[in-house]
Amino acid sequence: MSKYDQVDTSSPFYSPVAEAAIAEVAARVSNHGRWGDDDVLGTMNFLDEAKRIEGASRVQRGVTFSLAQSYDGNGPQMGWRRRMNPIHTMLVSGLDAEFGPVDMPHGFGGSDDYVVMPLQASTQWDGLGHIFDHGVAYNGRRAGSVVTSEGDQVTGIETVADRIAGRGVLLDVGRVLGENGELPDGYAITVDDLEKTIAAQGETSAVGRGDIMLVRTGQLSRVRRDGWGSYAGGDAPGLSFTTAEWLHEREIAAIATDTWGFEVRPNEFENAFQPLHQVVIPHMGLFIGEMWDLEDLGADCAIDGVYDFLLAAAPVPVTGAVGSPVNPIAIK
Amino acid sequence: MSKYDQVDTSSPFYSPVAEAAIAEVAARVSNHGRWGDDDVLGTMNFLDEAKRIEGASRVQRGVTFSLAQSYDGNGPQMGWRRRMNPIHTMLVSGLDAEFGPVDMPHGFGGSDDYVVMPLQASTQWDGLGHIFDHGVAYNGRRAGSVVTSEGDQVTGIETVADRIAGRGVLLDVGRVLGENGELPDGYAITVDDLEKTIAAQGETSAVGRGDIMLVRTGQLSRVRRDGWGSYAGGDAPGLSFTTAEWLHEREIAAIATDTWGFEVRPNEFENAFQPLHQVVIPHMGLFIGEMWDLEDLGADCAIDGVYDFLLAAAPVPVTGAVGSPVNPIAIK
Amino acid sequence: MSKYDQVDTSSPFYSPVAEAAIAEVAARVSNHGRWGDDDVLGTMNFLDEAKRIEGASRVQRGVTFSLAQSYDGNGPQMGWRRRMNPIHTMLVSGLDAEFGPVDMPHGFGGSDDYVVMPLQASTQWDGLGHIFDHGVAYNGRRAGSVVTSEGDQVTGIETVADRIAGRGVLLDVGRVLGENGELPDGYAITVDDLEKTIAAQGETSAVGRGDIMLVRTGQLSRVRRDGWGSYAGGDAPGLSFTTAEWLHEREIAAIATDTWGFEVRPNEFENAFQPLHQVVIPHMGLFIGEMWDLEDLGADCAIDGVYDFLLAAAPVPVTGAVGSPVNPIAIK
Amino acid sequence: MSKYDQVDTSSPFYSPVAEAAIAEVAARVSNHGRWGDDDVLGTMNFLDEAKRIEGASRVQRGVTFSLAQSYDGNGPQMGWRRRMNPIHTMLVSGLDAEFGPVDMPHGFGGSDDYVVMPLQASTQWDGLGHIFDHGVAYNGRRAGSVVTSEGDQVTGIETVADRIAGRGVLLDVGRVLGENGELPDGYAITVDDLEKTIAAQGETSAVGRGDIMLVRTGQLSRVRRDGWGSYAGGDAPGLSFTTAEWLHEREIAAIATDTWGFEVRPNEFENAFQPLHQVVIPHMGLFIGEMWDLEDLGADCAIDGVYDFLLAAAPVPVTGAVGSPVNPIAIK
Repeated sequence: MSKYDQVDTSSPFYSPVAEAAIAEVAARVSNHGRWGDDDVLGTMNFLDEAKRIEGASRVQRGVTFSLAQSYDGNGPQMGWRRRMNPIHTMLVSGLDAEFGPVDMPHGFGGSDDYVVMPLQASTQWDGLGHIFDHGVAYNGRRAGSVVTSEGDQVTGIETVADRIAGRGVLLDVGRVLGENGELPDGYAITVDDLEKTIAAQGETSAVGRGDIMLVRTGQLSRVRRDGWGSYAGGDAPGLSFTTAEWLHEREIAAIATDTWGFEVRPNEFENAFQPLHQVVIPHMGLFIGEMWDLEDLGADCAIDGVYDFLLAAAPVPVTGAVGSPVNPIAIK
Repeated sequence: MSKYDQVDTSSPFYSPVAEAAIAEVAARVSNHGRWGDDDVLGTMNFLDEAKRIEGASRVQRGVTFSLAQSYDGNGPQMGWRRRMNPIHTMLVSGLDAEFGPVDMPHGFGGSDDYVVMPLQASTQWDGLGHIFDHGVAYNGRRAGSVVTSEGDQVTGIETVADRIAGRGVLLDVGRVLGENGELPDGYAITVDDLEKTIAAQGETSAVGRGDIMLVRTGQLSRVRRDGWGSYAGGDAPGLSFTTAEWLHEREIAAIATDTWGFEVRPNEFENAFQPLHQVVIPHMGLFIGEMWDLEDLGADCAIDGVYDFLLAAAPVPVTGAVGSPVNPIAIK
Repeated sequence: MSKYDQVDTSSPFYSPVAEAAIAEVAARVSNHGRWGDDDVLGTMNFLDEAKRIEGASRVQRGVTFSLAQSYDGNGPQMGWRRRMNPIHTMLVSGLDAEFGPVDMPHGFGGSDDYVVMPLQASTQWDGLGHIFDHGVAYNGRRAGSVVTSEGDQVTGIETVADRIAGRGVLLDVGRVLGENGELPDGYAITVDDLEKTIAAQGETSAVGRGDIMLVRTGQLSRVRRDGWGSYAGGDAPGLSFTTAEWLHEREIAAIATDTWGFEVRPNEFENAFQPLHQVVIPHMGLFIGEMWDLEDLGADCAIDGVYDFLLAAAPVPVTGAVGSPVNPIAIK
Repeated sequence: MSKYDQVDTSSPFYSPVAEAAIAEVAARVSNHGRWGDDDVLGTMNFLDEAKRIEGASRVQRGVTFSLAQSYDGNGPQMGWRRRMNPIHTMLVSGLDAEFGPVDMPHGFGGSDDYVVMPLQASTQWDGLGHIFDHGVAYNGRRAGSVVTSEGDQVTGIETVADRIAGRGVLLDVGRVLGENGELPDGYAITVDDLEKTIAAQGETSAVGRGDIMLVRTGQLSRVRRDGWGSYAGGDAPGLSFTTAEWLHEREIAAIATDTWGFEVRPNEFENAFQPLHQVVIPHMGLFIGEMWDLEDLGADCAIDGVYDFLLAAAPVPVTGAVGSPVNPIAIK
């Protein structure tokens, strides 16, 4: 009954080639047990005090960039997996305060509001309980023992509430390799592309242990011009499945992109669905940021030629959440 | 009909003394027009690039502190003004992935979640559209022209999405003046108390233009030990109404406390409700953080004697929100 | 500032013809004051005990028809006025009960769920506080004194919680006058059409004081076949503005249709938006049902030639709601 | 791993006495397979056309009673199993319509609203997927194959959307056996009590095949006077576990009470949690209504001595819901 570690050869999606490829890479990039059986931090273990000092040292001009998209009803969600755009309603408005029957003391008035949203509606972190491989969660736990209807009991996003601040590095692959700064949908970013981008951008874009690596594809620039289309789940440029080992070897703390799903879509295997997620989250324990807005930051880096910065990207610690809204701030 | 700038002498709450006191202080601390008629940033105008460079220079050990409380059903909300604790539900869980009928390609499984919450359910920023005085919003606008049922059309929290990162300073008034590090409920923190705290803590706690000033009362420590009680709206230590001008003169960018409501409760006027809010938000344009968790940070500062740090506290930019969840990160 | 009873001749939508026509009909069909200044029931005053006895006498075969559409994520809502389809999430599922870590006594297991929805997401009643004319609500009250951010303080849907059960009558205009039982989008049903339908259907479809009149256009049949398209707010067959006085004279208790908005769309005046609503809700106090599923009932009536029945259509009494989900049951 | 049909003797709650008693009664009252392996209606199969004709024949005075409590923030929920009171917010209010900046054509104005609520927040039906016994759902299905995170895939409440209208019978046990019309908390209503009540009330309260049986305990009367207290899950009068076979033999279509949980609390077994639910929902397939307001109906029946009526109690058909809000209407 449990899919834990079982291959279902009777599935209509069964593909021995994909199964084998995913299993092989999963084994190579696995960090299970690397930080102990109780570990819940995954690659966030790489982000240490020294890295934060290094990040802070990159603040030279004092300028900030919010890397968050908006959270509102005008977002890209179109119901995939029942994800909707955020719904914001008022409990009390300024009209109530100015014209309403409520009488508060000595002229006091206030407004108040609510939000209803999927935790991955807009700019977000994927938690380590967000993706499983054959029923296996990060560090070899059973999916069903980690995430129940009461949320992620083990690796909820609150476990990294105080962690995600350090050195960020932007790889603006769209600007280096794309046309007009944009990679086309379906473009699979390879290791070679990443290294070319680093080489083109220069030494401030070197990526290593504990860094938070941001990859700009330019898709967000395109959909802002042309309309959302299928931004939330359709074709997109993104990381190739073949980059998994490179990401593993770099020992980065996290990666984030300006796309819905971080990896290239359509995916690179027959019948596949997000195979790079399937290896890097449950096996590597990598934190993935999605739907980040890298437009202003990318433009600034292109001008001053400095591609690293202090990045503070602390998730909203909704207890047990498998993802989280975040407003990442880059300070240069 | 409109309460804009009108005093309702027929209100059962009418108190000529309170009305006069509030009006007088409001006039003294007003920043209306100071940054132009179109300004939406209020005291965030004080937080500039130099201040961020100064903040970054305070990162010496690379340690981080999350200043956020949890966001979950175990919070303190008890329905005041229809504020409830956050509700977190799963759209898909690990049990579905491991045991459910869903068949995704090649063993892929995922979980996903929703949250429903008042934007001020837990650790938060008040936006400038959160409080009005006699129907007047920040910069002299009419409350009803700023915040409608569609949200804050002018000073929504998204307007400061990229601003709030700079030098933070902790004034641990609870530790300096309280018993066992805690001020009692109803304790009104005066200018003298603030200055004594600064003097006791030493030069790293000097507060000035553009700083984000954090005031620890110790109330959170107490309710964690004794139970929430009426933390969300009841009696509490907090800033005295008499500090308004001092806050104004310091030209701080923001202030945050470890209490529900920043100012002392019961309030200091007869029939009053949050009179300090009433002058500092709509008149001064001051950003107020509430329900911050200053426990670990306070303990650390007490040990190393360093009370300032880089503080990144970017709100989740829910469009038109009058408040916002935030996970503030202090880096020392 | 208040729009109460004022005509704004500077509005870009201002049309003296439409304004005059609406005002004239509004005056003719007004029930303001008819049942006293405190009345909150409007045309529900017509539905009395005798009418319920008559309705019950129509139960002859004991068969039931649910006139409700589904409440789920596959509905027609597309964000107009921020209305979304219902979101249903589980707090506990059968997978938790069967495989989860929760251990309840002696094998007990349970599941539980949440819903988030606009109150008019699917089959619904409009409350009397749903529509205003120049700031005027039913019975001549000011809109802002009736419906604040805390809901409808006067005519909330709970005020008719025990009322809506009586004789229902189906006018299957689509079947009588349409092609294949369906009227085309944009078809304005006139008084003549209503009377032709009654004549064609025979004596059981006579409509009078206290009846709940159901009008089937056939649009729902079409969108079920062809896809929702713009069912939620786009073009549709529906009642003509010119039927207002006929509806008034009949003294019906309520009317309901199988369309999103009861009246024909596009509307019949230049720059108009739902002018028939504008006269029948705030002036007449008429209860309107929308998005009802009249398909099975219509087919049955066509077979047995009996067009009246007992109709129980009690709203979910969400306090202060301006509309309400309902599962109307017709019993023949 | 699956708890399907397994007894966990290692559970801290394990009680051989309770296990045996529950298993024995479950076997006796089981309707598994009675209406075929595909059946989803359970005891609703008993409610047929003849019963509805009988119900309609009971309408003699044309008076109606809403048996629904309110749906709002003032309800009894206190967070048990994360159930909260309903949250109702406005998308547009009358203040927006009267004073807001929105300019709709020719004076049109409207309001609109949202609700967020557990489906069992107030007056409700339990669906057949709400309770499981050792991982077994109604008709012998596995709990995890019936109710996943996407809801009840088999016995969702929508499956009875058009069923629940028929003859209702009130057994006002509180009035017959209680003091001042109220049974005390912890009072277990026995078969003898039910039969005494029927005898005392007279022939109109005879209960048989297809009836919807309402049991008034008087607890709601008490909490309305004394405050909610622990109405939502605490001690209460209710049906004794020993009534299971009597309920089974009567072949009623459904039962409803004025209490949170239908059966007596504290429960009658050591370490027990709702053992009567555990046999009547998954084994018998009985529909249970909870939190019904039987006050006005009970008072009326006491006056006219007529205890049966037409009852229309159609659930809001939220697809896949395991429970549903309902506004039951009794017509006498």
